[in-house]
Amino acid sequence: MLRVMTAGESHGKCLIGIIEGCPANFEINIEEVNKDLARRQRGYGRGGRMQIETDRIEILSGVRGGLTLGSPISFMIVNKDYENWEQFMNPTEVDRVERSVTKARPGHADLSGVIKYDFDDVRNVLERSSARETAVRVAAGSILKQIMSNFNIEVYSHVSAIGSVKLDEKVTDINEIKKADSSEVRCIIKDKEALMIEEIRKAKEQGDSVGGIFDIHVTGVPVGLGSYVQWDRKLDAKLSYALMSIQAIKGVEIGWGFESAVTSGSLVHDEIYYDEQNKNYYRTTNNAGGIEGGMSNGENIVVRCGMKPIPTLYQPLKTVDIITKETVSASIERSDTCAVPAASVVGEMVAITVIAEEFLKKFGGDNKREIEKRWKDYILI
Amino acid sequence: MLRVMTAGESHGKCLIGIIEGCPANFEINIEEVNKDLARRQRGYGRGGRMQIETDRIEILSGVRGGLTLGSPISFMIVNKDYENWEQFMNPTEVDRVERSVTKARPGHADLSGVIKYDFDDVRNVLERSSARETAVRVAAGSILKQIMSNFNIEVYSHVSAIGSVKLDEKVTDINEIKKADSSEVRCIIKDKEALMIEEIRKAKEQGDSVGGIFDIHVTGVPVGLGSYVQWDRKLDAKLSYALMSIQAIKGVEIGWGFESAVTSGSLVHDEIYYDEQNKNYYRTTNNAGGIEGGMSNGENIVVRCGMKPIPTLYQPLKTVDIITKETVSASIERSDTCAVPAASVVGEMVAITVIAEEFLKKFGGDNKREIEKRWKDYILI
Amino acid sequence: MLRVMTAGESHGKCLIGIIEGCPANFEINIEEVNKDLARRQRGYGRGGRMQIETDRIEILSGVRGGLTLGSPISFMIVNKDYENWEQFMNPTEVDRVERSVTKARPGHADLSGVIKYDFDDVRNVLERSSARETAVRVAAGSILKQIMSNFNIEVYSHVSAIGSVKLDEKVTDINEIKKADSSEVRCIIKDKEALMIEEIRKAKEQGDSVGGIFDIHVTGVPVGLGSYVQWDRKLDAKLSYALMSIQAIKGVEIGWGFESAVTSGSLVHDEIYYDEQNKNYYRTTNNAGGIEGGMSNGENIVVRCGMKPIPTLYQPLKTVDIITKETVSASIERSDTCAVPAASVVGEMVAITVIAEEFLKKFGGDNKREIEKRWKDYILI
Amino acid sequence: MLRVMTAGESHGKCLIGIIEGCPANFEINIEEVNKDLARRQRGYGRGGRMQIETDRIEILSGVRGGLTLGSPISFMIVNKDYENWEQFMNPTEVDRVERSVTKARPGHADLSGVIKYDFDDVRNVLERSSARETAVRVAAGSILKQIMSNFNIEVYSHVSAIGSVKLDEKVTDINEIKKADSSEVRCIIKDKEALMIEEIRKAKEQGDSVGGIFDIHVTGVPVGLGSYVQWDRKLDAKLSYALMSIQAIKGVEIGWGFESAVTSGSLVHDEIYYDEQNKNYYRTTNNAGGIEGGMSNGENIVVRCGMKPIPTLYQPLKTVDIITKETVSASIERSDTCAVPAASVVGEMVAITVIAEEFLKKFGGDNKREIEKRWKDYILI
Repeated sequence: MLRVMTAGESHGKCLIGIIEGCPANFEINIEEVNKDLARRQRGYGRGGRMQIETDRIEILSGVRGGLTLGSPISFMIVNKDYENWEQFMNPTEVDRVERSVTKARPGHADLSGVIKYDFDDVRNVLERSSARETAVRVAAGSILKQIMSNFNIEVYSHVSAIGSVKLDEKVTDINEIKKADSSEVRCIIKDKEALMIEEIRKAKEQGDSVGGIFDIHVTGVPVGLGSYVQWDRKLDAKLSYALMSIQAIKGVEIGWGFESAVTSGSLVHDEIYYDEQNKNYYRTTNNAGGIEGGMSNGENIVVRCGMKPIPTLYQPLKTVDIITKETVSASIERSDTCAVPAASVVGEMVAITVIAEEFLKKFGGDNKREIEKRWKDYILI
Repeated sequence: MLRVMTAGESHGKCLIGIIEGCPANFEINIEEVNKDLARRQRGYGRGGRMQIETDRIEILSGVRGGLTLGSPISFMIVNKDYENWEQFMNPTEVDRVERSVTKARPGHADLSGVIKYDFDDVRNVLERSSARETAVRVAAGSILKQIMSNFNIEVYSHVSAIGSVKLDEKVTDINEIKKADSSEVRCIIKDKEALMIEEIRKAKEQGDSVGGIFDIHVTGVPVGLGSYVQWDRKLDAKLSYALMSIQAIKGVEIGWGFESAVTSGSLVHDEIYYDEQNKNYYRTTNNAGGIEGGMSNGENIVVRCGMKPIPTLYQPLKTVDIITKETVSASIERSDTCAVPAASVVGEMVAITVIAEEFLKKFGGDNKREIEKRWKDYILI
Repeated sequence: MLRVMTAGESHGKCLIGIIEGCPANFEINIEEVNKDLARRQRGYGRGGRMQIETDRIEILSGVRGGLTLGSPISFMIVNKDYENWEQFMNPTEVDRVERSVTKARPGHADLSGVIKYDFDDVRNVLERSSARETAVRVAAGSILKQIMSNFNIEVYSHVSAIGSVKLDEKVTDINEIKKADSSEVRCIIKDKEALMIEEIRKAKEQGDSVGGIFDIHVTGVPVGLGSYVQWDRKLDAKLSYALMSIQAIKGVEIGWGFESAVTSGSLVHDEIYYDEQNKNYYRTTNNAGGIEGGMSNGENIVVRCGMKPIPTLYQPLKTVDIITKETVSASIERSDTCAVPAASVVGEMVAITVIAEEFLKKFGGDNKREIEKRWKDYILI
Repeated sequence: MLRVMTAGESHGKCLIGIIEGCPANFEINIEEVNKDLARRQRGYGRGGRMQIETDRIEILSGVRGGLTLGSPISFMIVNKDYENWEQFMNPTEVDRVERSVTKARPGHADLSGVIKYDFDDVRNVLERSSARETAVRVAAGSILKQIMSNFNIEVYSHVSAIGSVKLDEKVTDINEIKKADSSEVRCIIKDKEALMIEEIRKAKEQGDSVGGIFDIHVTGVPVGLGSYVQWDRKLDAKLSYALMSIQAIKGVEIGWGFESAVTSGSLVHDEIYYDEQNKNYYRTTNNAGGIEGGMSNGENIVVRCGMKPIPTLYQPLKTVDIITKETVSASIERSDTCAVPAASVVGEMVAITVIAEEFLKKFGGDNKREIEKRWKDYILI
């Protein structure tokens, strides 16, 4: 059983992650993790913070000489800005006045958080609810991605909509999707890319923000991850759990998703064929997104996520001051106009985390040699 | 911590459910549960089985004289058809030939299930992967709904699309939504209802099937269920986990969902106001669907699910016989043309199960009096 | 991940168990389960109830034609006495007066249970806290024992103390321990057996009760179940969790346990040797009880449990009436004088449940063929 | 739900802990945590390492200005010795020869760990299996102890046996137990203290080691933590789980434990009385150790642990070299002769962690004010 836990405040000393339950003897390349962290920080439409920070992971335990030890992998991502925040954020004594926040921003955890935890300073909420936390999830996913690559499992994503600009059709060619990183909005259709950039530029000009949609594809997933035997073991359910937990995600679809809901059954379901030569089953379509009956079916796993626009607007929304109860304009923290390209990278890493968890559960095993053997036995049946 | 577990095969002796972690002294009316079970069985477009079975719950433990005991509530729903299946499904010795199935149906767990569990009879898979399992989830949710009603928490749903027929706009008026049960497709807009029925009738005529979309609204949820502090504690993530685990669901949205992804931020986020008289915060819109930052914000919880068409078609799809590996037509078990109205009832019950779990976690407490006191203290702050 | 959950009241309609997470295609012989249920009911010193009930399991799901399906195995043990209790225990309307209990028995859950759950009738507590629940744990363990026997893992137990009569030394010869079932106190040393029976007889005569100690031995456990990497993964900790949860158990030891605490290190630790011929490690002593560093080390797992005397005495203890608050004599329900032999059977079954869970985690896999292959690969390294 | 996870190798950069699920607004004094860390490092019979390290906690998240934020509390304990180990233990490239270990020490995780994780260097095991990990558990427990102190819950421990020197009777007077820290073996009976020190001195002289027994008392625990309704909810079972997971613990008892197993029922069970004036129940004995039916009963929680002698002996045991398979003498790492006083501090902190988890579950609530209110409501019933 793999467990991933994150900790850390946005302007605290650092972010912390623990991956518990990794098997032993897998190679981990730290620079590959840093590359994924950098991918999360890029993207047209990001605000100032991305300039301040170039996130780098520091592994604190669980990896020795480039190999996993089987013990918990813990790591740290230092908040470089902390020196400017220490007097407001340190664990012993703080200046509680200067950077306190009393205007609860709509669309954020602010108001409910303050009520739930009995705070009189929104900062106590926003420091943890911030999407900065996703850096840890990217790092964790990136480590697990390296482990999964030993089993030919890869994950990719691309942005399929930003604001009102949407791709005309679903892209399924993985070679095309691999090109997403060369676009600053992670869009693989050239003319749409230009329109998306323009959409963001316009929103920024108007002090507004835009959301969007991204698609995640996981390749090489063996048949039978997840299960139909109990509701909480289903692979689609677990992917949905993890992806919906990413900040600002408001919708998750597997394969054709909502579109399949409004299409005739005869057009939706993927017919099954058998390849005599390679002795395996295949399908010529993948509307199911690689999951039937709560299990991977051997096709690519395809998941889409819808992300709401960033709620912090330069033309601020109306809200209430939690102390005076007066109607005020929401405060403007340094913010992005569009974070969809970044979120798509987070989505990738969260998806591979779920796949890794289910993969490791199916194969059991505590070390690389053992798991490789079992995996080969399985795929060669 | 509430735990809900289900067991039982579709043509086995019975279905079994356990709700573990219910507090004590709450009234449970068994007939109310039977009503919800009946709601799951209704709906235009259901096939023959719904006539055979009129599901009724038999409580086996955890309730004494109409009051919960705090101990696990276990219950049984007898499969009335079992007498015709006993020789094929009993736990000791069975006729393994007559009702064996070797044609894996596309869109089902069949093929992946057979590979994962090493079966040569698809029946071993389909008996458990069947949506009949949802009867248990309805019963469990219905019991928890009764408990939640003590805290003014109610759940409703309606069907907003069947096949290509969709409602023109989102419905938010709970009094309208309450009328859904009087429609045989659970549609509350009269002219759309007629079109939906026609859509199903046509599909049936053509040996095809249709899916659809349903919306769930939970009212009275106090502020602060769920949390932003760790990814796996978020309310939207948990709802998504549970709802995506319902058979045939391929998409889940919170509030505006994917629509919010393609709308400007200034139009999406719900501004916050304060009501001096009642001393509470409110919003005039609810695009967030009652969840911000992974927590309930006091507005109605709104979730939508997209359900794919039933994969068993009378004009069957191509597939493979798992023994001979020959291409064949998928077998036709007795089947529905459209199960969206039924699924919307399941969705309701699954949603209230999640809300109940989070509610009970927030308030702790082991008995009705204790929880009522804490709840009143909280909502009257 | 294996999950075992029990439900049911002592005088309710039945007891229910669910084993979730069993792999497929394992043979289950129901009569073997009934034999283990019978073993739990035997033993010198049992009271009247054992005559009333001859527990038998009825499997409700998860097993078809004698083979596990991979789906949840649920089962029922009918309370044959229910007909005499129906009017007091049914889930709708009950006579709340006649069999109500207001005298909280010392040594039981009675008083704390009534306070925690806000009851005015101790019956609401004692029905679930009763050791009758262990019948379900025996049935679940017995099913898992059958699965584990495919991997040469067996479990045995014997009683090493009853009241003040203790065996003079630890028994480690499994062939001796196997004879325990032929003794009505499950004692394998003839002269001690007689003394134990006399101890019980005397206690009964005096209206008193006696507890005792039993030892559990699990053979054939492969190296490396459990782990040292996180506190909650340790095998000794998990055994201790499960065994201490058995009613009336007040102490758990691994191997030499408390005795090793008072012995010099040079005498406690088991030296390691290597067998060139069979290419495996071995030890000539097993003071560690087969667990080092939270992992099985290939030697027999040895665990001892101490059970307090049954608290219901015919010469009753002083207590308080929960309604009047007056000092009264504790009520005398039909009771045993000594339940140690029965508890030792429960301990066996609980121990094998833990071992099965850890075994299945280590080997992963969803069906018999897969797990057998992996297990052979592992033990033949 | 409280979750505590630890990470870190013994000679790695640092140890890491995360406490997830702490409510907000509780005062945390870091120096109090450091005091508990220091208590773990004291004790007659400790080896060289205790001189090298003076453990100090650095809080990385979850506490701001001395108050908990509700978000995960993560912290670090730096391994001061790391500079001497960096080239052997860093996460990228290491010298795999110089400090490799191939002699598996009896009584440790060494051999099973190497087999399980497929290592050829015992260092990969011993770094994580080391009892140094308990520093994190002490720090976590110390933080939770501070939170619990708001509810008058306190934890104490003392050493009741070292080697063959045992206290003559159980000590129950908390005021006496509080004095344990003033003894360098944490023994509160003066003449026994001297004998214990002598026992350790002699063992050291002989290159041997000694274990012992310690008793933990938790005061102020309200009635009804834990439950009888499901086996895995029982308070005694959870304490046993957590305590048995401490390195070298081989036995756990609740209250009289094994002694109650060999005593007549009429002498074991604690009679119940009612105090008219204070309107509460009480007992004049506490043989049950404060737990009946898996729940706290309002008396002090009393738990004893038996710790085996440290297995690393200066007169080393026989073992096998994992590479050559030759019989060799176990290697001698810098080691203690007796760690029982230290372990008793760990036991305290682990016990209060379990109590805190159950306390927070019972009262629910997300912040100090809420929980205090509910707790007062409960204890004043």
